[in-house]
Amino acid sequence: MNSTTTAPQAPVAPTRGVLRPLGQQDVRITGGFWGDRQRVNRAATLAHIDGRLESEGWLPNFDRAAAGTLPEGRRGREFSDSEVYKYLEALAWEIGRTGDSELEQRFAAVVARVAAAQEADGYLNTKFGRPGQGARWSDLEWGHELYCLGHLFQAAVARVRTGHADDALVEIARRAADLVCIEFGPDGRDAICGHAEVEVGLAELGRALGEPRYLEQARLFVLRHGNGTLDDIEWGRTYFQDDVPVLDAEALRGHAVRANYLSAAAVDVAVETQDAALLTALRTQWANTVARRTYITGGQGSHHQDEAFGVDWELPPDRAYSETCAGIGSIMFSTRLLLATGDARYADLIERTLYNVVATSPSDDGRAFYYANTLHQRVPGVVVDPGATSPRAGSALRAPWFDVSCCPPNVARTLASLDAYIATADADGIQVHQFAPAEITTTLDDGRAIALHVETDYPRDGLVRVVVDSDSDEPWTLTLRVPAWAAGATMRVVPAGSDAPDAAPADPGSASVRRAFRAGDVVELVLPLAARIAVPDPRIDAVRGSIAVERGPEVYALESTDLVDAGIADVAGAVAAGAPVEHDGQVWLPVRRLGERAEGWPYGAETGAAAGEITEIPLVPYHRWARRGPSTMRVWIPAS
Amino acid sequence: MNSTTTAPQAPVAPTRGVLRPLGQQDVRITGGFWGDRQRVNRAATLAHIDGRLESEGWLPNFDRAAAGTLPEGRRGREFSDSEVYKYLEALAWEIGRTGDSELEQRFAAVVARVAAAQEADGYLNTKFGRPGQGARWSDLEWGHELYCLGHLFQAAVARVRTGHADDALVEIARRAADLVCIEFGPDGRDAICGHAEVEVGLAELGRALGEPRYLEQARLFVLRHGNGTLDDIEWGRTYFQDDVPVLDAEALRGHAVRANYLSAAAVDVAVETQDAALLTALRTQWANTVARRTYITGGQGSHHQDEAFGVDWELPPDRAYSETCAGIGSIMFSTRLLLATGDARYADLIERTLYNVVATSPSDDGRAFYYANTLHQRVPGVVVDPGATSPRAGSALRAPWFDVSCCPPNVARTLASLDAYIATADADGIQVHQFAPAEITTTLDDGRAIALHVETDYPRDGLVRVVVDSDSDEPWTLTLRVPAWAAGATMRVVPAGSDAPDAAPADPGSASVRRAFRAGDVVELVLPLAARIAVPDPRIDAVRGSIAVERGPEVYALESTDLVDAGIADVAGAVAAGAPVEHDGQVWLPVRRLGERAEGWPYGAETGAAAGEITEIPLVPYHRWARRGPSTMRVWIPAS
Repeated sequence: MNSTTTAPQAPVAPTRGVLRPLGQQDVRITGGFWGDRQRVNRAATLAHIDGRLESEGWLPNFDRAAAGTLPEGRRGREFSDSEVYKYLEALAWEIGRTGDSELEQRFAAVVARVAAAQEADGYLNTKFGRPGQGARWSDLEWGHELYCLGHLFQAAVARVRTGHADDALVEIARRAADLVCIEFGPDGRDAICGHAEVEVGLAELGRALGEPRYLEQARLFVLRHGNGTLDDIEWGRTYFQDDVPVLDAEALRGHAVRANYLSAAAVDVAVETQDAALLTALRTQWANTVARRTYITGGQGSHHQDEAFGVDWELPPDRAYSETCAGIGSIMFSTRLLLATGDARYADLIERTLYNVVATSPSDDGRAFYYANTLHQRVPGVVVDPGATSPRAGSALRAPWFDVSCCPPNVARTLASLDAYIATADADGIQVHQFAPAEITTTLDDGRAIALHVETDYPRDGLVRVVVDSDSDEPWTLTLRVPAWAAGATMRVVPAGSDAPDAAPADPGSASVRRAFRAGDVVELVLPLAARIAVPDPRIDAVRGSIAVERGPEVYALESTDLVDAGIADVAGAVAAGAPVEHDGQVWLPVRRLGERAEGWPYGAETGAAAGEITEIPLVPYHRWARRGPSTMRVWIPAS
Repeated sequence: MNSTTTAPQAPVAPTRGVLRPLGQQDVRITGGFWGDRQRVNRAATLAHIDGRLESEGWLPNFDRAAAGTLPEGRRGREFSDSEVYKYLEALAWEIGRTGDSELEQRFAAVVARVAAAQEADGYLNTKFGRPGQGARWSDLEWGHELYCLGHLFQAAVARVRTGHADDALVEIARRAADLVCIEFGPDGRDAICGHAEVEVGLAELGRALGEPRYLEQARLFVLRHGNGTLDDIEWGRTYFQDDVPVLDAEALRGHAVRANYLSAAAVDVAVETQDAALLTALRTQWANTVARRTYITGGQGSHHQDEAFGVDWELPPDRAYSETCAGIGSIMFSTRLLLATGDARYADLIERTLYNVVATSPSDDGRAFYYANTLHQRVPGVVVDPGATSPRAGSALRAPWFDVSCCPPNVARTLASLDAYIATADADGIQVHQFAPAEITTTLDDGRAIALHVETDYPRDGLVRVVVDSDSDEPWTLTLRVPAWAAGATMRVVPAGSDAPDAAPADPGSASVRRAFRAGDVVELVLPLAARIAVPDPRIDAVRGSIAVERGPEVYALESTDLVDAGIADVAGAVAAGAPVEHDGQVWLPVRRLGERAEGWPYGAETGAAAGEITEIPLVPYHRWARRGPSTMRVWIPAS
């Protein structure tokens, strides 16, 4: 159990659990891979989102609500309010990181427009409840009213945690949450929202405000899933996770964003109510989902049609949906399990998903995004006009905005709060889970102030140097995650002013040093980053007989941009010829050309196996694909 | 060029082409595999469809139209009229085969209700044109008005060809077709229907009635495709084949039923207008589609979301849509190319699609159907209530009816007209394309009457005996198709009263005997039916490293019903141990168990390859799957 003195400036802050998050006041990413992305997020993405929320009419919907001119002129889908709230959450975290006064002004202006749309009893939604609109709560399957409020609550949490507990947004959220507790509480409707999110929002708002009613309402919503209170639909109640109670499920299923948001909330409920059985069930579901329903990128969701998980082993790379928001939802779920249990496997998946889903989505200029993240693109995309609004899954190239545009603001709020995912503390010390140049300061339970900073060029280089900047007379423990892929990692302590000793093996999982650290002490972790080949479990039918290449946390891809005389369908990895190699600053894979096969009928005794000369082709990190113009791409490459 | 004396009693009767179809007056299937299915179709399916058209309200929609009580109470989707027309077509062919007077009464009663709904100017549709409904032709993308009329025209063709040219339905169709020619002719709207079908209906109605205006209108509609007159949609104009002109396309693409119906009509136009360039383009498109976009079952359509072809090599077995109607559309396209060119490859694909798509769809009792035909079912289906209406693709088990129920009446009309797909004639003789017990009689161009019958237990047995029942003093040629898979086939002629000579090799393609046949002469074709292994083209990513088993025209499948200690995901075909074997009346595959792999993350250096003892497991013809209750199933089996 934790005994936090001040609440961390973080999206998640459980009142108990093995690890205590270190928030923005404790951790600052100072550069590197993620520092670059935070910079673009701040410099370009936030304004881009702001502009589209205005021009698409999704923010003006609130003005129309206040002016009484709805439903005429309302624009956007039924969940468009939520994008405004996610944008507010992104602003709030960015303001928390930087204290930016221009952003603060913009934040206040948007909040004022939202406030004007809230009704006297706390109800807030631009799509329902007015003459000419559907009645409040009349379409729980598809109306997304509670879903939108969940995002409002998460935005309010960001304000509370960044020192604005008296903010107008917090008051809006409180009034809305109170209404939800009346309408859907023990004496209210026995109902849930068709898209989970209000649960995770209520749970955290309850934590942030110390309001047990909100947590209890989150618990009710979580436990009502699986009772079939929602109507059946073409894809079944599985789509909404209303098929099986959370406690009884074996794996995540149905709509992948819904499933992850619900699971994240269920961890919150399990932790706060000390429901060990529920926590165990969620850990098992996570493990089964990761073992059988997750792409090598960490991406989740195998179906375009219902944006859903497939069944076990159903992981087609070419029809991978792998929605960016599902990746973010997976990080939300894993983060809560990491805090609850301290198990490094959760941090492993967070890292994989950050590098290969979240980092893949935004363009280098921060003004276009992937919604879906395919692992195999057979036809080059068409350049999207900067002013266009794209169908959500039309993702051969990044697009500036979507008819359903959940992903851009979801990426923005994640990057703005990313400092809070780097490290945690417990009674005995500090744990570094994600490797980035960073400054970390915190106070241990016994009152000792600890300061350290991380120097690394990860993931380009495998050396992670943690430099202690504070003196302590008593020992404490510094723990570094050793990723599961990092067999052969080593660690050593270089005391201030001393010669460097030999390094010791650091097995995958985590490596700890307990010591009365002095300023200038350095702990060095060396992670072996040689490119490696991954073969899939033989039960994953869609990639049988294929290989993928990884280097550190990054999955690599073959992109047509790098091929001269062949298409991406024409080559096979010459595995027997040796591993991928690195030279000229790139990863290269030895390949042969696939054999020609007689035209006609493609099934028969002929094999068309690869043969002939071996050549090397360069690969790129998957998250870099389609940044040099339209291309075809594949992560899984036939093995020869 | 043909010079037919009487029009064949067949769905397609070109005025020119290499082969002349033999219709129901010439060919009668007398039993066997297809005779059984025709019997069930007549005894059960037609009444089942009739009942659902009444109970779903799709037929009563016509009564409401006549009574002036539309749009209130209209039921069904925008294309529900077409199911009534396909049912009428099925009845017409069945009446043509059998002269059944009860069916004739039912036919007349339904036609009377349709007639009452037709408007004074010939317009006929229950969804558009009345107060409170959309205006006529106001939603060409999705309204399906012309699509419905195309099916009306095909039903009318069935009546004309079965000796009822003066039928009320023919008059209804003629009036509607005249209206279409005015509305959409050279001086009318420059527009097409979002779902091709009116083209193939108009072309054949023009042939049947000798009305060149209808053929010209079909030509206009075909050639207007690719001009982008339809609105763009989420999946692009490719969905409607309005992206590229028919002449310029490289392969079938977009919605698989639409693509095949359009291609069939385009062959009709090419043949009738002697447009050699168009015919060549269509042959190339067919070849590319078969080489790269067709499942081993002959099924077409790789996407659930848009019911569409994938791009080249995109053929996931587990997400195969392979709509039953797309299979029927493919048979329509191939039949027209077969008649135009005489190339046996088209008959090969027809056979493959008949046995593995069309025969798979209906249940043994003829009252439930597959809409989609997956090649890999990982989760057993749930038994569907006989009174239920299912989502179209919910197809783990056959279902009695669908919200979109195009497939059941499409199967019914195909089975009712199947006699017309068995054989053709040309100036010199007769060609037998499909092997079934049948009686064939026709008159050659020179006036000679020919009679023969086919004896066979195909596809259970590979012996096909064609017994000549007529004497001729002049030679004529009997040609039998030799399927592409039938390497090692042999043929011999056993003259009446003579000893059987040695058989000669008959290479895949076709084998002919030219002779002055006497009654009692027998031509025996022996097709080798040993079960065989097929490997896929290495560019078909989704089944790489897997094998399928075929026997004759039938694709086989592994069904969980036949496994005791393992699931269908747990075994790998032990290819090196030898081919599949046949004993105890079944096909058996030697398999090993897939290796266990450490739980956790499913990608890494471990392979989990199959190992251990080899056992034999039985396979079933794919079209037999899920007839013994809910099961899991796979056509493609990992190779070890």
